[in-house]
Amino acid sequence: MAKRLLGKEVNASLNKKIKKEVLELKDKGIEPAICMIRVGEHEDDISYERGASKRAETLGVKVIKRVLPLDIEERELVQVIKEANMDASIHGVLLFRPLPKHINEKRILEHLDPAKDIDGITKTSMASIYSGDKEGFPPCTAAACMEILNHYQIDLTGKKVVVIGRSLVVGKPVSMMILKENGTVTICHSKTEDLPSVTREADIVIVAAGKARIIGKEYLKEGQIVIDVGIHVDENGKLCGDVKLEEAEELVEGITPVPGGVGTVTTSILISHVVKAANRQR
Amino acid sequence: MAKRLLGKEVNASLNKKIKKEVLELKDKGIEPAICMIRVGEHEDDISYERGASKRAETLGVKVIKRVLPLDIEERELVQVIKEANMDASIHGVLLFRPLPKHINEKRILEHLDPAKDIDGITKTSMASIYSGDKEGFPPCTAAACMEILNHYQIDLTGKKVVVIGRSLVVGKPVSMMILKENGTVTICHSKTEDLPSVTREADIVIVAAGKARIIGKEYLKEGQIVIDVGIHVDENGKLCGDVKLEEAEELVEGITPVPGGVGTVTTSILISHVVKAANRQR
Repeated sequence: MAKRLLGKEVNASLNKKIKKEVLELKDKGIEPAICMIRVGEHEDDISYERGASKRAETLGVKVIKRVLPLDIEERELVQVIKEANMDASIHGVLLFRPLPKHINEKRILEHLDPAKDIDGITKTSMASIYSGDKEGFPPCTAAACMEILNHYQIDLTGKKVVVIGRSLVVGKPVSMMILKENGTVTICHSKTEDLPSVTREADIVIVAAGKARIIGKEYLKEGQIVIDVGIHVDENGKLCGDVKLEEAEELVEGITPVPGGVGTVTTSILISHVVKAANRQR
Repeated sequence: MAKRLLGKEVNASLNKKIKKEVLELKDKGIEPAICMIRVGEHEDDISYERGASKRAETLGVKVIKRVLPLDIEERELVQVIKEANMDASIHGVLLFRPLPKHINEKRILEHLDPAKDIDGITKTSMASIYSGDKEGFPPCTAAACMEILNHYQIDLTGKKVVVIGRSLVVGKPVSMMILKENGTVTICHSKTEDLPSVTREADIVIVAAGKARIIGKEYLKEGQIVIDVGIHVDENGKLCGDVKLEEAEELVEGITPVPGGVGTVTTSILISHVVKAANRQR
């Protein structure tokens, strides 16, 4: 039976570190603050906003919420972003995406100050993740995967890591971070032929396929570590991941459950980025 | 015996296309021009400069050479770059690197206009390659690998492509380009364990290890396509690649020779980027 790699265990040590840094900042008269910019009332956004706000509060980070109407004009949204850039009491900006279709997302992102881009969505942050320097912040979900591996002291040097998914939110950034940790990375996707034969060769599998319970035991082997990035609601209204958890955990060595895995860590990572940004902006 | 994938064959069709585009530009009164900025008299730089200048001349592209002393100050080099940015008759800038140690390369690159960055070295270009949009130019060597595969109609969809090397000049950009063409990409490097077992699984192997003749038949299998990015001078003073050509070509299906492979195509790609940049700047 696999060891469950639990978000709460990772968070226990991560949050302790964050709290300490927040106290140090407050001693210097700085209250780290995140500005969350949400356009419309998308359910996923509200849910993430709620989780992140709660986590921020627990850790002593201030939350400023900007909720904007769905029919906001592009130039008005730009104005809100510019205000957040200019406001020295705001250290990190989280912009919920996707934005409504009448807004050119790419053009919007050009206005966000890379120093406050705590979810790695600007060009500058992307170039940083890609090149492996330490300037920009990686997307929080990708960073959460790495934090879990790091917490459980799973060294990546020389290991075969297979990533399923090539998105800019998880697949690509986590692959670049694995390379930086000296892992040998294989990036798979919807066009990969005979995916099970590829994933079975891995020491570590990071699943960000975006489809509920598509990875069963035929994709896995004994001794593997599985990080499941997916979050879905199944036909019974229960949360589940991209991996068939019950099936997988009978076979592999370690696995992150859904719920209680990557998602839980992501919000702590977000807040840790705010704190890091506040430290850099001093 | 493997088919040799020859740079001259790729160039024959690539150069024809470039010449046509140059003529079309000249008809519109535009003479596409590249500015090559070289600091010092590094032999490799001079050799590349010579090859690229000759290719440019053949294809009807103007070359402006700026040769600067090794002890140039950073602000003077920035000035040269700014002049090239401002000069509307220059469409692409090639800056030879590495720069001397007293110059902060990263700071220098911030001054180069991304629109004229024909070798993909600015942050904007990197973000573009990484995200897969079409804005920036990829590094010419990476693009040359793709051009060869494309010329010989080697479809990457679903194929297993193993890249040896994780540099920003070849390994990373070519991996991103393979992903975009729907290949399944594995990025290997000096820390990869049991490299031969990884490369033998590939349909296509792109070798950018940067070490002379380290890839022999034990890394390869029948039916593979091998792209050899390395260029070295061996102990007998002869040019060779990262792959043991004689050994490999007895086994695999197709291979780029060194000399006469990737390097030959790289200079044509460089000139094609200048022409593309000139078209965009109209």
